[in-house]
Amino acid sequence: MIPKLEDIRLAYDRIKYQIHRTPILSSHSINCISGANIVFKCENFQKVGAFKFRGASNAVLSLNDSEIGNGVATHSSGNHAQAIALAAKMRGIVAYIIMPDNSPQVKKDAVAGYDAQIIFCEPNLKAREIALNKIVQKTNATFIHPYNNFNVIAGQGTAALELMEDIPDIDIIMTPVGGGGLLSGTAICAKSLNDNIQVIAGEPSGADDAYQSFKTGILQESTAPNTICDGLLTSLGSLTFEAVNLFVDDIYTVDDYYTISAMKLIWERMKIIVEPSACVTLGAILKYKEKFEGKKVGIILSGGNLDLSKLPF
Amino acid sequence: MIPKLEDIRLAYDRIKYQIHRTPILSSHSINCISGANIVFKCENFQKVGAFKFRGASNAVLSLNDSEIGNGVATHSSGNHAQAIALAAKMRGIVAYIIMPDNSPQVKKDAVAGYDAQIIFCEPNLKAREIALNKIVQKTNATFIHPYNNFNVIAGQGTAALELMEDIPDIDIIMTPVGGGGLLSGTAICAKSLNDNIQVIAGEPSGADDAYQSFKTGILQESTAPNTICDGLLTSLGSLTFEAVNLFVDDIYTVDDYYTISAMKLIWERMKIIVEPSACVTLGAILKYKEKFEGKKVGIILSGGNLDLSKLPF
Repeated sequence: MIPKLEDIRLAYDRIKYQIHRTPILSSHSINCISGANIVFKCENFQKVGAFKFRGASNAVLSLNDSEIGNGVATHSSGNHAQAIALAAKMRGIVAYIIMPDNSPQVKKDAVAGYDAQIIFCEPNLKAREIALNKIVQKTNATFIHPYNNFNVIAGQGTAALELMEDIPDIDIIMTPVGGGGLLSGTAICAKSLNDNIQVIAGEPSGADDAYQSFKTGILQESTAPNTICDGLLTSLGSLTFEAVNLFVDDIYTVDDYYTISAMKLIWERMKIIVEPSACVTLGAILKYKEKFEGKKVGIILSGGNLDLSKLPF
Repeated sequence: MIPKLEDIRLAYDRIKYQIHRTPILSSHSINCISGANIVFKCENFQKVGAFKFRGASNAVLSLNDSEIGNGVATHSSGNHAQAIALAAKMRGIVAYIIMPDNSPQVKKDAVAGYDAQIIFCEPNLKAREIALNKIVQKTNATFIHPYNNFNVIAGQGTAALELMEDIPDIDIIMTPVGGGGLLSGTAICAKSLNDNIQVIAGEPSGADDAYQSFKTGILQESTAPNTICDGLLTSLGSLTFEAVNLFVDDIYTVDDYYTISAMKLIWERMKIIVEPSACVTLGAILKYKEKFEGKKVGIILSGGNLDLSKLPF
């Protein structure tokens, strides 16, 4: 079952005291370059530096005391890991985090900084799942999936809730798509509030499983993804696939070239730090300019965590 | 003659319609690391990416029509150049900008983007002044000095005016010092509003002429400066030296090591882009922690313009 607008509102009431209401910025020069009228919802300024703290907070706060007594566990390439670690710390429970051993150092350090117990595994879905099952069996911790989880999706939808409250007249709302948690929550929220809004995702061409799933109607696995967007390597899950099919208008695939150009634009013109995965949306606008010309576009900038010693420019 | 608080207020009334009222941010983790309670006035989000647009706007808007008929001219290593270029463009007059030929490419591009006429010169004060005099004689343009100018200093003081209006209970206010325009305007404003506030500047150890001038009471020239802070290479002028002597409590010299650490902290924890010159203040706090412990410190982050392909980390 996927969340409804009502569930996103309930999530917001639950988490609003521990999240940041992130600012919405715009850039005159990016509007001139793109031809669109873009507002950026800056989840790079969210706690832990990414929207993931919304979903993680809602998931952790939705569990009752008996469900949560043995802590929580998850697997994540980074931002969800930090988010669960902090949400658990704030509730005073233990978090077990399965992380791929090739995660950026800055993300490993951050998770450790929130006192979570880290278990490293090889960087593939199979290894993650085996490591996770082992931990859950051993500790009886409650597994919180990074995106294929009702409460996580509802929590991620709260970014769009804030954005549409502040800027009600958006024509198009955009997010990146990896596992689809942010996209699902955003799409459910946006379409429920305004049936005329278009919901468009950006996805790296080198990891286009969501695009393939969307176009074929059959859930496709992510195999050998090849992109700079390290937060967008995973496949959709059953819940996010359902939400995407019901509420998303289109998914645009974007070569890393456009994503990196978009990232440089945001860094140089807006003076804010965003990670590559966050820039696939503006990348899509730069690639398909004519589709966005003159439109008011709301972009959810998903996060700002990256290794500063490994910039693509 | 140096400006008074009244002149800074007049400057604010003159420029407030064309500048951004920049946000004030804070970071829980930087407070934990530094032991101080720091608020950052984010002039990296100002137009042209630096506080310099305040002084340039005030100088350009203070000239009457006959003074401005032949345009304005200045020399600058970067941010003042962009600021004058944009302020002139907004008033519809021509700007002649003398720039050192080793200025960061991103700064050259920005000045050109505002339609200014650029004249390159060798990167030393002598060469700049010769090139400037030539242009002024040839064109009859009005010279606007980057910092040793009454209206420029008054304009720079408006950042502190906004900061102290938003956060009245600051114990210490800090800026970097290069030519001293921002420091002078800030010190005049802060001390006039609250005699108990401490005004402390950060200066690179490798370009410590303002520190030497302040300690000896004799204006020292900057000779062979060696620092990553490319906006802080110049010497004080007669006006800024007077203001510094009257209103500044201390100047702390900071090795680039601390400035770079501070810059990395701001980038990683606050997800905002600031240039090295802007970080010498937090660098001073990291170096002299005990002086700032438990104090409420207002830092004016001076700018965010730098070559992203040449990061110091």
